[in-house]
Amino acid sequence: MSGNTFGTMFRVTTFGESHGAALGAVIDGCPAGLALTTEDIQPALDRRRPGQSAWTTQRREADQIQILSGTFEGYTTGAPIALLLHNHDAKPEAYDHLRDVFRPGHADFTWSAKHGLRDHRGGGRASARETAARVAAGAVAAKWLQSAYHINVIAYVESLLDVSASIDPESVSREAVEASPLRCPDPETSSQMLERLAAIRQAKDSAGGTIRCIATGAPAGWGEPVFDRVDALLAYAMLSIPASKGFEMGSGFQSCTMTGSAHNDAFYTNESGEIRTRTNHAGGSLGGITTGMPIVFRVAFKPVATHFLPQESVTTSGAATTFSARGRHDPCVLPRAVPIVEAMTWLTLADLAAQHAAYTHPVRVR
Amino acid sequence: MSGNTFGTMFRVTTFGESHGAALGAVIDGCPAGLALTTEDIQPALDRRRPGQSAWTTQRREADQIQILSGTFEGYTTGAPIALLLHNHDAKPEAYDHLRDVFRPGHADFTWSAKHGLRDHRGGGRASARETAARVAAGAVAAKWLQSAYHINVIAYVESLLDVSASIDPESVSREAVEASPLRCPDPETSSQMLERLAAIRQAKDSAGGTIRCIATGAPAGWGEPVFDRVDALLAYAMLSIPASKGFEMGSGFQSCTMTGSAHNDAFYTNESGEIRTRTNHAGGSLGGITTGMPIVFRVAFKPVATHFLPQESVTTSGAATTFSARGRHDPCVLPRAVPIVEAMTWLTLADLAAQHAAYTHPVRVR
Amino acid sequence: MSGNTFGTMFRVTTFGESHGAALGAVIDGCPAGLALTTEDIQPALDRRRPGQSAWTTQRREADQIQILSGTFEGYTTGAPIALLLHNHDAKPEAYDHLRDVFRPGHADFTWSAKHGLRDHRGGGRASARETAARVAAGAVAAKWLQSAYHINVIAYVESLLDVSASIDPESVSREAVEASPLRCPDPETSSQMLERLAAIRQAKDSAGGTIRCIATGAPAGWGEPVFDRVDALLAYAMLSIPASKGFEMGSGFQSCTMTGSAHNDAFYTNESGEIRTRTNHAGGSLGGITTGMPIVFRVAFKPVATHFLPQESVTTSGAATTFSARGRHDPCVLPRAVPIVEAMTWLTLADLAAQHAAYTHPVRVR
Amino acid sequence: MSGNTFGTMFRVTTFGESHGAALGAVIDGCPAGLALTTEDIQPALDRRRPGQSAWTTQRREADQIQILSGTFEGYTTGAPIALLLHNHDAKPEAYDHLRDVFRPGHADFTWSAKHGLRDHRGGGRASARETAARVAAGAVAAKWLQSAYHINVIAYVESLLDVSASIDPESVSREAVEASPLRCPDPETSSQMLERLAAIRQAKDSAGGTIRCIATGAPAGWGEPVFDRVDALLAYAMLSIPASKGFEMGSGFQSCTMTGSAHNDAFYTNESGEIRTRTNHAGGSLGGITTGMPIVFRVAFKPVATHFLPQESVTTSGAATTFSARGRHDPCVLPRAVPIVEAMTWLTLADLAAQHAAYTHPVRVR
Repeated sequence: MSGNTFGTMFRVTTFGESHGAALGAVIDGCPAGLALTTEDIQPALDRRRPGQSAWTTQRREADQIQILSGTFEGYTTGAPIALLLHNHDAKPEAYDHLRDVFRPGHADFTWSAKHGLRDHRGGGRASARETAARVAAGAVAAKWLQSAYHINVIAYVESLLDVSASIDPESVSREAVEASPLRCPDPETSSQMLERLAAIRQAKDSAGGTIRCIATGAPAGWGEPVFDRVDALLAYAMLSIPASKGFEMGSGFQSCTMTGSAHNDAFYTNESGEIRTRTNHAGGSLGGITTGMPIVFRVAFKPVATHFLPQESVTTSGAATTFSARGRHDPCVLPRAVPIVEAMTWLTLADLAAQHAAYTHPVRVR
Repeated sequence: MSGNTFGTMFRVTTFGESHGAALGAVIDGCPAGLALTTEDIQPALDRRRPGQSAWTTQRREADQIQILSGTFEGYTTGAPIALLLHNHDAKPEAYDHLRDVFRPGHADFTWSAKHGLRDHRGGGRASARETAARVAAGAVAAKWLQSAYHINVIAYVESLLDVSASIDPESVSREAVEASPLRCPDPETSSQMLERLAAIRQAKDSAGGTIRCIATGAPAGWGEPVFDRVDALLAYAMLSIPASKGFEMGSGFQSCTMTGSAHNDAFYTNESGEIRTRTNHAGGSLGGITTGMPIVFRVAFKPVATHFLPQESVTTSGAATTFSARGRHDPCVLPRAVPIVEAMTWLTLADLAAQHAAYTHPVRVR
Repeated sequence: MSGNTFGTMFRVTTFGESHGAALGAVIDGCPAGLALTTEDIQPALDRRRPGQSAWTTQRREADQIQILSGTFEGYTTGAPIALLLHNHDAKPEAYDHLRDVFRPGHADFTWSAKHGLRDHRGGGRASARETAARVAAGAVAAKWLQSAYHINVIAYVESLLDVSASIDPESVSREAVEASPLRCPDPETSSQMLERLAAIRQAKDSAGGTIRCIATGAPAGWGEPVFDRVDALLAYAMLSIPASKGFEMGSGFQSCTMTGSAHNDAFYTNESGEIRTRTNHAGGSLGGITTGMPIVFRVAFKPVATHFLPQESVTTSGAATTFSARGRHDPCVLPRAVPIVEAMTWLTLADLAAQHAAYTHPVRVR
Repeated sequence: MSGNTFGTMFRVTTFGESHGAALGAVIDGCPAGLALTTEDIQPALDRRRPGQSAWTTQRREADQIQILSGTFEGYTTGAPIALLLHNHDAKPEAYDHLRDVFRPGHADFTWSAKHGLRDHRGGGRASARETAARVAAGAVAAKWLQSAYHINVIAYVESLLDVSASIDPESVSREAVEASPLRCPDPETSSQMLERLAAIRQAKDSAGGTIRCIATGAPAGWGEPVFDRVDALLAYAMLSIPASKGFEMGSGFQSCTMTGSAHNDAFYTNESGEIRTRTNHAGGSLGGITTGMPIVFRVAFKPVATHFLPQESVTTSGAATTFSARGRHDPCVLPRAVPIVEAMTWLTLADLAAQHAAYTHPVRVR
């Protein structure tokens, strides 16, 4: 892992800027023999795509994925898989008035402090548009893990501002998530969220919230302590998503208020002879290794940094200034962040699966 | 990063088990010319050491650090620095009755599921005793960063079960933290926590809580997006600590209930001509790159998995069983987790400093 | 380093197959602020391009490079730089008769043994066409190192079969190399080589030879022992080039026949006060760290595996067979391998420069 | 791979200096369940140990290995394996007269140029004594690969100065190698070499030579192109050994003088139905992936840099000086380099085995 590469064995390197020529990802370490075409990838991108509803940015990008390498006659070959997305609806001129302003809540100032210059067009590399490449790569990981392990991953919006749903993660279906324009599978909460968001947009402001994610089907035994724990890699993966500011595994911060006797998940053996736990406060991980129970976690997203109220800031030369944002922006990233959280979960699990295979390599020929 | 190695450029590999011969760390990538003796390392270990007070395990380990390599006449040479701690008070027989039992909340089952066997003595490699090696390595990172950048890192206990302190992180001194046996710098809250913990211990149960950490003095510009964001690396570092279940940066989960206009930190230029933000909801990071403001985050620790009440579980062959823990255990890890959180923060910052140096290497000879 | 990625800090990931849609490279870790356009890259590709002379394959590829990301208004931004080359003159049908044959000397059998399937079209990923992406990436490394350090790299053909030139590497100019169709800077030897090669082609056979490379201008102090020695990284880089089978640094295998007193390079201080050596048997490296003297090494390339004589082999199902190659092939790769050797040298030096910057990071603020 | 760590999945980090407290290695990624005690490691160290014969340094080091972690009741657990060797016969005062002199052929100058200071005692970290840790780690890799794959590795001295043996590598036994004090399995050549070496020592000079190595039993399919080719990783491994200056795989530099029709190894199917090649000019690798044929390569070692004749050099302040070496030194490293070459071969193969397992992870549940 480093900079623009995610993963140790199933590695994804992404590239591209918000208003550059193209975005893409190169996947290295995907096993050969996996059936893979663009149809395995496009649906995930369509779920992340801008312009899906009134609640997302009106930028028009078809986001049609191309597979440039790594497959032959419909199957992966073991060679690196390059995925490409061209930018078509870039409007860099919409950012001309921001060329010399550091927008609060964005990476404008910090990128400049780091590198001495920046691509001001829509945040450049720091734009969440970069995550389109992650979603494409995540779909490849998903195809593999679904084929090899029958793993499933579902994320959904659990709260938006002060509107929060109380949902059992194990009961959530993809259909219920997609039925809501905000990807909150509880219809009543979804309606309240929409109402709340309409008011926020009316007020030219923006909102954040939380996303819950559940991964089922992973066997017991994945994770590479002491550092590459499942919890640690998921935390890393989630905090690498733009605008995310928090992560909790299983009972998370809630566990801090429980006693040990209430929190420990008792073991039992089920009718199939598998060892399971009666509760799952651990969120599917003990000592950083999967238990075979569902992996459950939650991610916090701060409110969108771009709102339409006037803001105090400084210019690139440090002079005080006031500005207002213009253009096409999501009032709330949550619905589009759902497929991104899923993609990063797939990529984390794929890497853990490959690492586990390497480290538990046979000691004896059997 | 991978398995037992933390960091990309300032890399630490740890080894050792709870009841094995020794624990240690090898640091690769520490600059040459740093004055370094065991006296730079021992104080951090003494803060983490067992047996410090009535509230920590009574295992007696002097934890005297040895530097085996990497220094010459008191200075680092650029060669790898090996640090060693011998185990002296190991009592593996105290775990004989647990040889065939999977303890709930521990890695016993998952390590076996992964590797087909386990060292049952005090959790083996999965024991928190492993963190002694991290604390030793963290002290080396601290020595470097304090010399080179005047960075400071302070962690403290913010909450224990339902007792929570409300403290401005920027006001906390090391002295105030150390004055409390629980390392909660607010004396009144500390007393309440002690009272609460006495009751928990009396009830043979255990507790968890949260630790807040603040790092000051890091310049703007550290962090390697898109994946190696400051936030992501800190989340990874913190979730790699045994028993940690959550992480939040700056306003964290609280940010989800704020609007964008309330959350954005306005920029201004201070009297020294430096760009700063009026608030610090971001916790010192924008776009995954440091802002130059204090880096502030919080970590959730679940209650200690070992309590002394009877527990339901299964044997290694899957049969139902009931057992009770015996021996020497902390009723609450929080005070000893404080130096561990600090150590992982130092190691993260050292790696970011070294990476930043590599990536901003001069384009022109000046 | 791993699989399809070269380098630790200045990292290049390549992708693409001989007869796939496109080839490319993603560079991560290139400093920001470097002036970079396609004009900095195209000349190196033109030197490697097929169809340059009667001595190279007649496949027609313009190999026009595109920069997809990582630059803004002509300067690098610190974001990953994606480079793309489309394949235009792929003729996969020319390989139809080889779909079920394992060609001797090629990766057909081993790729199948590894992955269970292969892309038989021109060797797929195992084709030397992949090196076009390396040459493009190498040009970016060259641009940086030439700007920052005035480093220069020149490679040339030193021997072909039994025809060998005796040339002082320090006397060779780029012009002299380019004046020869075989990139042998000694005109007389070049003529003999051409004659020899004409006979080989006439006989439907193929040839190999050696390439010498010299890099001047690198300061003393680069290299990361004990494993990432300059010598070791260059050996790795060179043996990663298709068809290379040997590497020697400085006096190399010749040193084995010298005594220590004859081989040691005596130190002296030159008129500029710099420490230099009177001879350079070491080839610019002592203990795996650069001395500041020219870095000189030699690479062995086996004869081209594709010749036009009948060959004994087996089919993919193991049956004995005989076949003859058809189509467009170089009788000798050496002239086109020259820019590839240079590119891999640039990439190695760029990585060493970046690593050195990270590891010699200041201990004290100065 | 980086600095002091070798390998991607089976990773070894070494530490320690020639005259420091101790040397050691930490192995991360060794599978659990491998029977492992010090008796598996000690014999390899005994073969490398100083003071074995009149032809090696008279420094007396028992080199008794300790296993500090990673095993439990005689089996590996999947935790990192720390190996430790204490230095007992360090005589740093023997180097006092060299404190301010840069010895030609050694890393004294370059380490200082890199890090601004050096440990002058016997070369510090740059001493070949560091390779004791590699040999210990290599023995662990050997134990695993011998158990799991019946792989065998044998190295031997092929030439010393101008005395060269002509031996079929496939005919060499460990016994024949060990029967020679110079580890040259041909008795007659061994005698000639001894004679040659006696004269060299008499002349206060030193010698180098070549080592051939053969690894049998590795299956077809190992190696991770395009960069992590078997050839490239072996070249890297071998050139990372102190004093090595060249590497060739299979026919190596000799291949440059052969035509393609003579060099290609024809495929056939043997009586067991396995695909093999009639010759093995490739040295067991095609396209960087193992063929299943023996892996054969050769390594060049320069003459020992320390001889006892007067040498011209400079002091650390750049002044011209003349000095003569004193103390305990090998006149020729070759016999002791044999187990080092073997160790690096084992480590390379172990890493390739683990990587292969990760990358050919099942696509479908079978």
